Amino acid sequence: MGEPAYLDISARKWKQLNSLIPAQWRLDDKYIPRGMRLSPIESVHKLDGFGDDMGSLVDIPRKCGILNSREIAITENWDVQGLLYEIAEKRLTSEEVALAFCKRAAVAQQLTRCLTEPLFTEALEQARRLDHHLKRTGKLFGPLHGLPVTVKDTFDVKGVDSTVGITALAFKPAIQDAALVELLRSLGAIIIAKTNVPQTMSFLDSVNNIFGRTLNPLNRSLTAGGSSGGEGVAVAMRASMVGFGTDIGGSIRIPAMCNGIYGFKPSVGRIPYGGTTSGQPNGKLRVALKPVAGPIARSIEDIDAIMKELVPRSELFGHDCIPGLWPSLTPLKKKLRIGLLLNDGLVNPVPPITNILKEVSNIIARSQVADIEVVDISAPAVMKKCMFTGGRLMDVDGSGPLLDLLDQTGEPLMPYLRGRTKRRPPMSIEKLYALCAERDQIEVDMRQQMWSWPPSTATTSKVFAQTLDAVICPVAAHPVPKHDSYGSLSYTTTFVLLDYPTGTIPVRNMTETDLNLEFNAGDKPLSKFDEGNRQFWKEDRKIYLGSPLSVQVVTPRLHDHELCQVMSVIDSTLKRHYQSNTKAML
Amino acid sequence: MGEPAYLDISARKWKQLNSLIPAQWRLDDKYIPRGMRLSPIESVHKLDGFGDDMGSLVDIPRKCGILNSREIAITENWDVQGLLYEIAEKRLTSEEVALAFCKRAAVAQQLTRCLTEPLFTEALEQARRLDHHLKRTGKLFGPLHGLPVTVKDTFDVKGVDSTVGITALAFKPAIQDAALVELLRSLGAIIIAKTNVPQTMSFLDSVNNIFGRTLNPLNRSLTAGGSSGGEGVAVAMRASMVGFGTDIGGSIRIPAMCNGIYGFKPSVGRIPYGGTTSGQPNGKLRVALKPVAGPIARSIEDIDAIMKELVPRSELFGHDCIPGLWPSLTPLKKKLRIGLLLNDGLVNPVPPITNILKEVSNIIARSQVADIEVVDISAPAVMKKCMFTGGRLMDVDGSGPLLDLLDQTGEPLMPYLRGRTKRRPPMSIEKLYALCAERDQIEVDMRQQMWSWPPSTATTSKVFAQTLDAVICPVAAHPVPKHDSYGSLSYTTTFVLLDYPTGTIPVRNMTETDLNLEFNAGDKPLSKFDEGNRQFWKEDRKIYLGSPLSVQVVTPRLHDHELCQVMSVIDSTLKRHYQSNTKAML
Repeated sequence: MGEPAYLDISARKWKQLNSLIPAQWRLDDKYIPRGMRLSPIESVHKLDGFGDDMGSLVDIPRKCGILNSREIAITENWDVQGLLYEIAEKRLTSEEVALAFCKRAAVAQQLTRCLTEPLFTEALEQARRLDHHLKRTGKLFGPLHGLPVTVKDTFDVKGVDSTVGITALAFKPAIQDAALVELLRSLGAIIIAKTNVPQTMSFLDSVNNIFGRTLNPLNRSLTAGGSSGGEGVAVAMRASMVGFGTDIGGSIRIPAMCNGIYGFKPSVGRIPYGGTTSGQPNGKLRVALKPVAGPIARSIEDIDAIMKELVPRSELFGHDCIPGLWPSLTPLKKKLRIGLLLNDGLVNPVPPITNILKEVSNIIARSQVADIEVVDISAPAVMKKCMFTGGRLMDVDGSGPLLDLLDQTGEPLMPYLRGRTKRRPPMSIEKLYALCAERDQIEVDMRQQMWSWPPSTATTSKVFAQTLDAVICPVAAHPVPKHDSYGSLSYTTTFVLLDYPTGTIPVRNMTETDLNLEFNAGDKPLSKFDEGNRQFWKEDRKIYLGSPLSVQVVTPRLHDHELCQVMSVIDSTLKRHYQSNTKAML
Repeated sequence: MGEPAYLDISARKWKQLNSLIPAQWRLDDKYIPRGMRLSPIESVHKLDGFGDDMGSLVDIPRKCGILNSREIAITENWDVQGLLYEIAEKRLTSEEVALAFCKRAAVAQQLTRCLTEPLFTEALEQARRLDHHLKRTGKLFGPLHGLPVTVKDTFDVKGVDSTVGITALAFKPAIQDAALVELLRSLGAIIIAKTNVPQTMSFLDSVNNIFGRTLNPLNRSLTAGGSSGGEGVAVAMRASMVGFGTDIGGSIRIPAMCNGIYGFKPSVGRIPYGGTTSGQPNGKLRVALKPVAGPIARSIEDIDAIMKELVPRSELFGHDCIPGLWPSLTPLKKKLRIGLLLNDGLVNPVPPITNILKEVSNIIARSQVADIEVVDISAPAVMKKCMFTGGRLMDVDGSGPLLDLLDQTGEPLMPYLRGRTKRRPPMSIEKLYALCAERDQIEVDMRQQMWSWPPSTATTSKVFAQTLDAVICPVAAHPVPKHDSYGSLSYTTTFVLLDYPTGTIPVRNMTETDLNLEFNAGDKPLSKFDEGNRQFWKEDRKIYLGSPLSVQVVTPRLHDHELCQVMSVIDSTLKRHYQSNTKAML
């Protein structure tokens, strides 16, 4: 017997990827971090040894000599609106913008393995067509004319693979664009690359047998997150103006957290999801839990700039989308009441997570940007069920179809999945009904109990008495973890089950003071997940020094625009606060 | 062995129902139509013999002496806005309005068996509370203050049964109100009764072993329709200002058609569906096809008057609802382009149905109400699949749970269901996935192919290029049929599968001229359903004389408000046309 087919496929895909990075964009060896000296397959299995003394890689594209000063300026000086304005004013061409970002993406790939399918040639061609259009007609092609973006590997792009890191899906190029890709291009956005994901997209480290392990540019000892991990890295590296991920258990919000940027998981129907490849059987997502597409970006303003163009047009491109409006985020006139949820009743976050939530609450309660009241809320009892119900809904088929796919090429499961992904009998229709009924009841209970303040005492009425505008809570109960050690997903899966829009706001980095915080001595574990979570704080704490601390903001189902408003107010309040503190310290 | 339990339960429920109709509201024998002289159980099995010489029963409440002249005026002179205005201006009290409608509902019940649970005592109590509120505060309780409405038996009302005609569900009063009931009452509407449905709600004649067969007030030889048949009759009899039904295979639109009134099936999420009892297992509707709640009324203005209050508040009461707006139906500024779809590729309607569609098209193309272009469209090839895919989605569990319920009391299936409802193994998850994938593809194809005019030639783009504002098509391929003889549901189920909002507009009654129309000699049957449908035109045509002819209007998914606008324009154009024609004839 020869070697399993997956190894050959993996090698050929890796060669294909590398052939798409021009020789003149190759990094000097001195910039390559230790973790990138491993082959992709080696990077899967070697869980330590990624750490090195290089610190953050985010500045290497500026220093490496591959981008000239103008290209550095293009990739670093602008937010989405600013860059679009420069192109519209003809101070920048789409081609030079695309070239700058392609170079930066190529550099990012060599530093982190964040890409799967570079689309540099296509991107430059499209950019030239946009320039020609503008020159010929005097008009922009669309409101995102020339904006370089990246998309998670799951989004089909005609002519290239959507392997999602599964070798059996390699060398089967998509025959048409995903609805979101089509929508983005119709607006003039340029897709410069597809980005890396975990094998099966079902865990939180972007690692697979084809493209290897995506590294966190901030710290190689910590995970880059997933499943939209390549997106998180590409955006953090300024290789892309905005990234598009998908989220079912936290896959937009977690890589945003891991890379210190912003992630926005909309409600189902706001952004087209159709035309994605997941390795799951067609039709599953209608039966089970449905992932959602959404942006990852470097600011809430960039998320707003994208959502305001996508949401009103989503219905035209996604058969799964609903009519929607996205008015401008004008300054809020009304007072906001925000609930502070320190734990979900299942897992008590490690002390610096609790601390950052309290810190954020104190800052926003004194906001000069808006009138904000912060109230302490506790988790409705039913909240504890959400992660389990969500997990069972993701796995109604007992993983058989996915494992069959891996078996086709003899491909082994990633280390994190071993022992966690087992072939079980598919659920019966009867059990599926019961699970859906449970979900219905959870939705009803959570609506009544999470959004009322003071807490509702009415138990018979179904009325949704929303007196909280938003809730802030952890993204995860632990810091950005080491590779293959992500803990409980209760804070992220819950809001997919409930279809609440939610986003990640990066706050500040972990300090020595944070590292010295301890659990209260008398606290008893809330659950076995809570016990597991405490391990994060028992060993190796120093590794988290300097890692990003984030908060999650949540609004009721389909209140996506309100979420963006609240995130914007919180974010600008936090920025004012930390900037003035920094100034005071100088 | 004694007699099966269902007979005793049925007798006790029937007695209970009758005990709720006061003696002084009992009709003189001379008004009772022949079909009502049968017991409920007899009415199930005797399929002919309902015909009599009484003609329409609609005027009997006016003549029977039970309502005084003021009560007749209350129940006949107003539309929804008018009645609400009279109450607001204190020219009518809620109590006298409720009393008039309760009397009329009691009369309607004696003429047609349209009710299941009279709520007269509760309604009058609530009306007195509303009057007291208005007197005490000078303010209306809500925008529907005092409006008498009815709801299909499926909507739970605390304290009374939701049997949906299944004996096993009798004498198990609901412990809380359905979300829609709660919403309606919060606005001041008064629920005066629940109304009759088919056993299992899965066919189109409202007949069951408890409440018997609901009779069509226009013609006892024809069905009253279903599954919201009691609603259709109650509204046609002016026993209720607006009725609320549910629709999965046509259950709002078909009783509207059968009773010559208006039915409006919204998209999922517009009106709360939660808190209904269907006899189906909990959770099924999330897996399978989801029914939709919506109004049945005597005018499109009444539907608009209700929707404008419900839609913006639905999200507050239904956890299954989405945020929505319902602006006023201001005169349309823009030109409308409406597609005329004469057949769905599966069943060719009988000649008077095709004729009424052409007649309506000709009239609206010359509309003085709006600028309307009517274009002939043909059914996308995929449309033929919709009814089958929808049907399989309704039956993923192989009917086992429903048949188990009937077995509990030894209750036999209704005649129409015998041979049609059989216990089969539940579907596997794998097959369910495939079915859902099929549905996805149908949605994509129909969006692209149904709404583009001229027809789209692009096959790779997923863009929804909507150049038709609405489509008009048959509600059914046949006239209002005899009892237990409803034909193909393709024209109604299709739009639940696709989640397109759609409504029924009554046009005029069948004339002798219509009865003389014939199929084109050369036409070949499109399918075995088409062959079956031709039977309607081979025998017994005379029975349809005077029966209502309707058209169905359809808009894209979630374009509910646009549907109401288009229905309003079509309806007012038709009214002008037929009124001026009537005047010309005088």
